[in-house]
Amino acid sequence: MTVRVGVIGAGMIGQDHIRRLTEVVTGAAVTAVTDIDAARAAEVAARVGATALPTGADLINSPDVDAVLVTSWGPTHAEHVLNAVAAGKPVFCEKPLATTAEDCLRIVEAERAHGRRLVQVGFMRRFDAGYRQMKEVIASGSLGAPLIVHCAHRNPTVPDGYTSAMAAQDTAVHEIDVLRWLLDDEIVTAQVITPCATSKRFEHLKDPQIMYFETANGVRIDLEVFVNCQYGYDIQCETVGEEGLVRLPDPAAVGVRTAGRHGTAVLQDWKGRFVDAFDTEFREWINAIASGTGPTGPSAWDGYAATVITDAAVRSLESDGTVVTVDMKPRPACYGGTA
Amino acid sequence: MTVRVGVIGAGMIGQDHIRRLTEVVTGAAVTAVTDIDAARAAEVAARVGATALPTGADLINSPDVDAVLVTSWGPTHAEHVLNAVAAGKPVFCEKPLATTAEDCLRIVEAERAHGRRLVQVGFMRRFDAGYRQMKEVIASGSLGAPLIVHCAHRNPTVPDGYTSAMAAQDTAVHEIDVLRWLLDDEIVTAQVITPCATSKRFEHLKDPQIMYFETANGVRIDLEVFVNCQYGYDIQCETVGEEGLVRLPDPAAVGVRTAGRHGTAVLQDWKGRFVDAFDTEFREWINAIASGTGPTGPSAWDGYAATVITDAAVRSLESDGTVVTVDMKPRPACYGGTA
Amino acid sequence: MTVRVGVIGAGMIGQDHIRRLTEVVTGAAVTAVTDIDAARAAEVAARVGATALPTGADLINSPDVDAVLVTSWGPTHAEHVLNAVAAGKPVFCEKPLATTAEDCLRIVEAERAHGRRLVQVGFMRRFDAGYRQMKEVIASGSLGAPLIVHCAHRNPTVPDGYTSAMAAQDTAVHEIDVLRWLLDDEIVTAQVITPCATSKRFEHLKDPQIMYFETANGVRIDLEVFVNCQYGYDIQCETVGEEGLVRLPDPAAVGVRTAGRHGTAVLQDWKGRFVDAFDTEFREWINAIASGTGPTGPSAWDGYAATVITDAAVRSLESDGTVVTVDMKPRPACYGGTA
Amino acid sequence: MTVRVGVIGAGMIGQDHIRRLTEVVTGAAVTAVTDIDAARAAEVAARVGATALPTGADLINSPDVDAVLVTSWGPTHAEHVLNAVAAGKPVFCEKPLATTAEDCLRIVEAERAHGRRLVQVGFMRRFDAGYRQMKEVIASGSLGAPLIVHCAHRNPTVPDGYTSAMAAQDTAVHEIDVLRWLLDDEIVTAQVITPCATSKRFEHLKDPQIMYFETANGVRIDLEVFVNCQYGYDIQCETVGEEGLVRLPDPAAVGVRTAGRHGTAVLQDWKGRFVDAFDTEFREWINAIASGTGPTGPSAWDGYAATVITDAAVRSLESDGTVVTVDMKPRPACYGGTA
Repeated sequence: MTVRVGVIGAGMIGQDHIRRLTEVVTGAAVTAVTDIDAARAAEVAARVGATALPTGADLINSPDVDAVLVTSWGPTHAEHVLNAVAAGKPVFCEKPLATTAEDCLRIVEAERAHGRRLVQVGFMRRFDAGYRQMKEVIASGSLGAPLIVHCAHRNPTVPDGYTSAMAAQDTAVHEIDVLRWLLDDEIVTAQVITPCATSKRFEHLKDPQIMYFETANGVRIDLEVFVNCQYGYDIQCETVGEEGLVRLPDPAAVGVRTAGRHGTAVLQDWKGRFVDAFDTEFREWINAIASGTGPTGPSAWDGYAATVITDAAVRSLESDGTVVTVDMKPRPACYGGTA
Repeated sequence: MTVRVGVIGAGMIGQDHIRRLTEVVTGAAVTAVTDIDAARAAEVAARVGATALPTGADLINSPDVDAVLVTSWGPTHAEHVLNAVAAGKPVFCEKPLATTAEDCLRIVEAERAHGRRLVQVGFMRRFDAGYRQMKEVIASGSLGAPLIVHCAHRNPTVPDGYTSAMAAQDTAVHEIDVLRWLLDDEIVTAQVITPCATSKRFEHLKDPQIMYFETANGVRIDLEVFVNCQYGYDIQCETVGEEGLVRLPDPAAVGVRTAGRHGTAVLQDWKGRFVDAFDTEFREWINAIASGTGPTGPSAWDGYAATVITDAAVRSLESDGTVVTVDMKPRPACYGGTA
Repeated sequence: MTVRVGVIGAGMIGQDHIRRLTEVVTGAAVTAVTDIDAARAAEVAARVGATALPTGADLINSPDVDAVLVTSWGPTHAEHVLNAVAAGKPVFCEKPLATTAEDCLRIVEAERAHGRRLVQVGFMRRFDAGYRQMKEVIASGSLGAPLIVHCAHRNPTVPDGYTSAMAAQDTAVHEIDVLRWLLDDEIVTAQVITPCATSKRFEHLKDPQIMYFETANGVRIDLEVFVNCQYGYDIQCETVGEEGLVRLPDPAAVGVRTAGRHGTAVLQDWKGRFVDAFDTEFREWINAIASGTGPTGPSAWDGYAATVITDAAVRSLESDGTVVTVDMKPRPACYGGTA
Repeated sequence: MTVRVGVIGAGMIGQDHIRRLTEVVTGAAVTAVTDIDAARAAEVAARVGATALPTGADLINSPDVDAVLVTSWGPTHAEHVLNAVAAGKPVFCEKPLATTAEDCLRIVEAERAHGRRLVQVGFMRRFDAGYRQMKEVIASGSLGAPLIVHCAHRNPTVPDGYTSAMAAQDTAVHEIDVLRWLLDDEIVTAQVITPCATSKRFEHLKDPQIMYFETANGVRIDLEVFVNCQYGYDIQCETVGEEGLVRLPDPAAVGVRTAGRHGTAVLQDWKGRFVDAFDTEFREWINAIASGTGPTGPSAWDGYAATVITDAAVRSLESDGTVVTVDMKPRPACYGGTA
């Protein structure tokens, strides 16, 4: 059975996922596309033999659409996801699930009312081989209880439009999600500290930032977010447990010795770093829909949690680094697990 | 356009490639299956909605088959490939292209007569990301001319049926192919040396073996083949040039510190090591057929060369390690390049 | 010229340094030993042909003593160092310089009054090859201004007598000193956070602890102190600058592949980790005295600064992790530099 | 007790060892120096308070000399060593022990006649921490019997005077000695192969060379000698056993990430690579003499064996790479062990 996907939002990320669904992942077809720019929707749809539709609502309700992919502008996510849930169709929503915690909660509520999971949020790190190996090691218990996690998230540069709050909202949000999942634990406080800023960024931006999180089980997380580090795209994560530690590998790359140096290339781009994770994310999503099990990736609740924690971090940033308690609603039983 | 593939040989490797063509690679469908065991053909065909056909010839000539995949028993390869070429259909043949140099040459001749490439041989290492990075570094000239290549090919164990000659024919053949391509150079002599044998192998088997190859340009290659090394599946390759060297990375894996050791897992299986290479190999093959460019991977000539070089290595093994000159016919112009 | 050293305190560390001065470092002789346990002093002195003297004051004033090494119980350090300064003799004092900031300041004052440096404090990391390489990289400016430092200091276990305050006083103090020197910057705030404690420690102990420091230039330091980490003795340090980072290497050790793992041994002991640094520390100290240049290693001021910063960290620990401002006197000009 | 050393040969290496004996190693003094250039002898002697003597014989027989260090021109080694043995004094001879196998044997004979070991040959790799760890791993039996050793010995460049034969005599001789010791096995054949020569060397020189050795136990060794590799001084060694392998580490060095690369420095010089080995070599030699146990490092027999094996390699080089059997006399029982 081929899963017929309708795509809302045909911008760069939407087009990349359309390529993924049509050229990389088997078992899927893109049958409908919509975009605020109708011409773009038409053009992108034509490329893959899909129909361009005027609105998200049209697309969601189209009989040719089995599942919905939301890659439109963030503020529109909630509406499309709610419509999809109302239509009873599986929906994959790129992060964020919604731009406010309240809207996330409305989606959680709608899904709970619907009775089974329909929503998956686009946190791709859970599909990365390194993080999966790390989770396996932690879950095996061979390191004892986890106590501390050290992380770094570095980009070579960001464009002018990137704001200080986006360090939490757009960048750290990936660690926030993956750490909740890795540790099977919930984040309860957030704090954001600003070292001396690099001179190599736009004047308005606080960069780097250091974020500290505490979990319900007392695990302490430190996360360096440095989005103008110049040298490359670099993701580090080390979990320290009672009897040992586990560390994410650097991506495999040939080693070269020349002119007095042994060196390996550092990636410049998140796409290269997580291309396999994206592919796996969509492969598993399509398989889950095709097999009728429903989505198994990050849930609406995870989308809500990420937003609430991100909000806490931004509040800390805006109040000179005070420790902010994460104000999260009780987790509905239907979402299972702890985090 | 979907490329309709017919598969000759529904054993383990055939089934794995059928899974790949139907579940991993987009743009392909398996429409016909044949096997010496008709029941197995029927069963495997049924799983993917293909038709089971009685013979390879039937399959090749079926109007529902655009391209042929040969994964049957080695001695049957030549016949199927020749039939496919006669039918003017693209054919992917798992290694070996044929079991004798003569049969390989017949295929080369047939393809030359046909006028354009139809045949691709299943040497997957050319599709491995590490080897591709290595080739890029060598081709960039930043290391100067290559002079020496050090390789190791280790398996944890092999079954009883594995013979001493298979160290060249089944194991080293992968390095033979990938090094010709890496260096863009031809192998002209082969020598096989047998150190003290490990006690951890079947009595009849000479293991490990060390193979030395010399290329037309004077590059010297040493290759350790050790198929009962116990500890894991481990592929090493280092190319030394006039100004530096480049080394294949170990597969990325989490590092774990516990009980006085820092460790990473070593793979146990070639499938894990080269799964991405296999996927890329078929993705590119299908794309090449769909786009009409014809196959771009290892050619019939490469299959012939690998067989001739392998034969030389076996002859050296059987004559106590004498240096054996590779007796290769002149390379037809239509195959381009050097190696 | 042989430097004749008198040693105050013949316990484990004193004996190890006596071995170093007599068997490892050239140009030195141990001529006098004193200890609160006269019998031990006599025994240790006899081993190296030195004279056992009843008190530190006797030793300091002995005409056979050119330079003094203080390795006695911490609370006695100040008195011996002050006496040595009064006698105008070079004195090497194992950490801490004194147990209170006030006593440290008295030494600083005495040295200043004396007019030139006589005191060196036993912070050996400044003599470690890895830290020296790191300092060179930072000082070269190739990374731009340093912004963040990530550190870990892990011991496999500690004895029952180890208290929560000792995590700062005995353990983190090494990072405190070496980071001031690495960055050529002063620490201005300290904060100590306690994650969930490991179950593998004595009940009274808060372990691990995470320490955050801020410098005058706005560099943020995070330091994990984990003294019952079980797996080994492990020192990590990474300095992130505006254009890149530099990371301390793990000690060189053979790599072993066996039974599905690639592994290297992790040291179990600080002595193995820093043996070369200790040797270099004493070699340079003896050379500096012999050549008449006076000590060039960590100064009395550095001993004072380490104590004041350590005090701030302990105060933070005891007040539930509040940020404590380091209350440091102005740096006397005679100590040069920034930190 | 201070060991009084007389040094024959005050050139670069002699002066470096004099520095080592006077500034690095305790328990030694240099009391006499001789050199073919009397003025140089006088100058070097004056620096360390030693007496300049006219000849090696004078020095060896001086009552102020307990032990002799031979660092003169190679062809004079045999005479000085024989004189020292005749005088019953411990003698450390820089490699080679003698320039011919015959002269080496005369020394072996003289020492045997003397009744106990007096001679140590300057193969410093046995004192390198990495090789010692490797030997420990091999000797532990955890890898099973060793089967294969892969080595590389690379220098950035060599001066014009370096000849093709020196690749064996001066360069590979270090591996020849250390491998006999590592494996506790004897080398029985040698073969030297010349790949395409690098364009970056003097015209007369065959560089790189690949050497193959076989041991009495059937272990196969391959050794790349590449003395104009441009990029650095790089020593590699990997021993493959029946159940796993052990690999020499690269020297510890800080890792730097900048401008899209993760890199570490490669050493440019053998002195930096083996400085600790040299120090340990002399420390142990002096301690062995002081304690009366006699030298425990490489023996006259090892010096003989290295010369015989080196001769075989040169013969192979000069006969187009034929396999040359090592013509070694039976090992006198007094030298113990196997190799």
